[in-house]
Amino acid sequence: MRAFPAVKEMGTPMGITTRFTLPQADIPTQWYNLAADFPEPLPPPLHPGTRQPAKLEDMAAIFPENIIQLEMCSERWVDIPEEVRDIYALWRPTPLLRAVRLEKALQTPAHIYYKYEGASPAGSHKPNTAVPQAYYNKLAGTKRLSTETGAGQWGSSLALACKMFGIECVVYQVKVTYQHKPYRKLLMNTWGATVYPSPSEHTEYGRKVLAQDPDSPGSLGIAISEAIEDCIKTPNTKYSLGSVLNHVCLHQTVIGLECMKQMALAGEEPDVVIGCAGGGSNFAGIAFPYIREKIVNGKKTRIVAVEPASCASLTRGELRYDFGDTAEMTPLMMMYTLGHKFIPPSIHAGGLRYHGMAPMVSHAYKLGLVEAVAYDQLKIFEAAMQFAQTEGMVPAPESSHAVRAAIDEAIKAREEGKKKVILFNLSGHGLMDMPSYDAYMAGKLGN
Amino acid sequence: MRAFPAVKEMGTPMGITTRFTLPQADIPTQWYNLAADFPEPLPPPLHPGTRQPAKLEDMAAIFPENIIQLEMCSERWVDIPEEVRDIYALWRPTPLLRAVRLEKALQTPAHIYYKYEGASPAGSHKPNTAVPQAYYNKLAGTKRLSTETGAGQWGSSLALACKMFGIECVVYQVKVTYQHKPYRKLLMNTWGATVYPSPSEHTEYGRKVLAQDPDSPGSLGIAISEAIEDCIKTPNTKYSLGSVLNHVCLHQTVIGLECMKQMALAGEEPDVVIGCAGGGSNFAGIAFPYIREKIVNGKKTRIVAVEPASCASLTRGELRYDFGDTAEMTPLMMMYTLGHKFIPPSIHAGGLRYHGMAPMVSHAYKLGLVEAVAYDQLKIFEAAMQFAQTEGMVPAPESSHAVRAAIDEAIKAREEGKKKVILFNLSGHGLMDMPSYDAYMAGKLGN
Repeated sequence: MRAFPAVKEMGTPMGITTRFTLPQADIPTQWYNLAADFPEPLPPPLHPGTRQPAKLEDMAAIFPENIIQLEMCSERWVDIPEEVRDIYALWRPTPLLRAVRLEKALQTPAHIYYKYEGASPAGSHKPNTAVPQAYYNKLAGTKRLSTETGAGQWGSSLALACKMFGIECVVYQVKVTYQHKPYRKLLMNTWGATVYPSPSEHTEYGRKVLAQDPDSPGSLGIAISEAIEDCIKTPNTKYSLGSVLNHVCLHQTVIGLECMKQMALAGEEPDVVIGCAGGGSNFAGIAFPYIREKIVNGKKTRIVAVEPASCASLTRGELRYDFGDTAEMTPLMMMYTLGHKFIPPSIHAGGLRYHGMAPMVSHAYKLGLVEAVAYDQLKIFEAAMQFAQTEGMVPAPESSHAVRAAIDEAIKAREEGKKKVILFNLSGHGLMDMPSYDAYMAGKLGN
Repeated sequence: MRAFPAVKEMGTPMGITTRFTLPQADIPTQWYNLAADFPEPLPPPLHPGTRQPAKLEDMAAIFPENIIQLEMCSERWVDIPEEVRDIYALWRPTPLLRAVRLEKALQTPAHIYYKYEGASPAGSHKPNTAVPQAYYNKLAGTKRLSTETGAGQWGSSLALACKMFGIECVVYQVKVTYQHKPYRKLLMNTWGATVYPSPSEHTEYGRKVLAQDPDSPGSLGIAISEAIEDCIKTPNTKYSLGSVLNHVCLHQTVIGLECMKQMALAGEEPDVVIGCAGGGSNFAGIAFPYIREKIVNGKKTRIVAVEPASCASLTRGELRYDFGDTAEMTPLMMMYTLGHKFIPPSIHAGGLRYHGMAPMVSHAYKLGLVEAVAYDQLKIFEAAMQFAQTEGMVPAPESSHAVRAAIDEAIKAREEGKKKVILFNLSGHGLMDMPSYDAYMAGKLGN
């Protein structure tokens, strides 16, 4: 077979390693708990009635004891149960890639790395916490789990995890995405879950919201209230949350812990670590292990949370105790919030439409360990298209916020003429978000 | 943190390795060409007019010279260009997994392994050939590529590859899937391709078909005719085919070559190797390296091609020279065929709706190196659901044919009470095929 001449202007520089994978044995054996390393203690959640620090029994109605222990846990390292690591192995360790084609398109001296969490069966990072939550509930004897979901990334992940442990799963999905992105609802059904568009007629609170506004697009805050009401009113049912809470951030740290091993394989250290932030869990996942390096080892790594401008709790909210849901059923949490009654506009990044920010992420932001930036929707999809057309994978609208910030950091590096190592979390793929890309390509997308 | 007791009845047996990955350096450096090892020579394609073996110049109108050389190549090993390996690294090497949860659900002594090709940006094995085809066309100066697609797996893969090499891409998509699965069309658009539902008004042949049957659901045969006509009538345009041809089967052998390294890591050898078969390329990809072991080293491995009963060229067709397309524009190929005028029913596995079988696969079947089996649609989705609910990943309807056969082999092993090692190719995920799952779950699916 005659050899064809190499075409230098095509493809990547020859023979560069761009893919960094780990064997199954390198799935982390422990989660990292940032609460153990904060220079100032994390303000506790408060009982909505007494305004006193919430006790284990205050949360026992909606969470099993073992999950509440994780939520309140102050130990630095938490063992990952073997059963959970076994299931993680279906998609973990996830690959770390260097985006050489994107670098080339941007003509930047920066090196851009991305952790690809879309490799999971549900297409995002969410199963990292869905699986342990289902596991701990199974241990506690839970027969049924209720939850909410925005874009459906979380709902589908919990449906998957519940199926694996034989737990019934009911999901309240924010109505606007239930209608606009039917595929994720069908995915939840495929994994055996029951899905209601929220606000629904299925709960008292849902009916109340519909009475006030029959056309309500819904919000995560409303859906959370419905899921909690469902949990409280249904026997053998507990509630599960896909973001915000301490134990969820804890579970997601497998992302950053794997990144550290993979960046070592790449022989580089990130100057800036980026993640999109709605409730804060995927950001926490990639960021917390690097925040520890700042606190404990004085590393100067910049860590950036990227929000949608239309729902920017860190950059436009205030830090105070607020409810996690619209119906005021959750404990009060100290967090950056836009107010628990705030209904975000119906942007395509449905997974980021939450009024508050995870207390641990909020605390890190208050302590100056983390930066935040917000972008309008059009800038997000512009970045998403450029990523898809250079690196191939089509990013989820949520994840595209991290892509946007990574691209802007790379452009800045070009303008400043300095090499910079950028690491971001590609938290999920957008293959079930194609209607959003359709709207963007058709010029029908606004900010 | 107190340790929670392990729950033996949950999850997998503790600590078993179920995931086998390879580093980027293990992406094969050569493709394997089965033509070099056939005990009897492969019958050549014939010029439709002269009925003499087609010459290079006979195909020059639709393919560049370097692709035709690959098509006619008789060398055993063909170097993979560095630029192609660089792009393969976006998703290759793909993981090999052992389906321990499925094994458990089937209570089988068999070990079931699957190669997961859905890890590519397009969600299937198709980019394995789309990338080299775009590369060789770029080398040859092609500015525009035309092609057809069934379910859209191929069209989206060529759109991706063309975008990476700066080639314009136009896709004729079988109308029934264009209408029923809009997401893949949008994916092609996202990667910059133009997509027409076939039969279309855009070609003479399309208009002719529509005149006879305005409601024609289309077929791969018709779409191929339109794509070839488009190619011949448009300047600087070549044609690209996603299956059937020798060079396509050649490119796909990276699948089987990686499997051999990964099965070695698992410390087992497959007793049976399974792939679904429409045009034959993903089956060829996993099967050909194992067929070589049978020919050269006398291995007894069973190799099984799985077809849809509604379009079963191997099990219900006849071996003869036939056209690759409906309009009789291609060379004649010696293959198992249902006749080039055959329009398959509109099953959900759109990618398998082709009247013929790859000449190399047909030859292997004729020589008894390969078995074939056909299944009805309902049995396929039953298997797909069981796989999704045990292993997580939702399989494409096409790939689910391989899942079905693997499950039946595992059940047979249980009944015979003997251990057996089963390997199958999970050629793609079904995240863009959710309407098909919806139809199945709603009981609206027929055979």
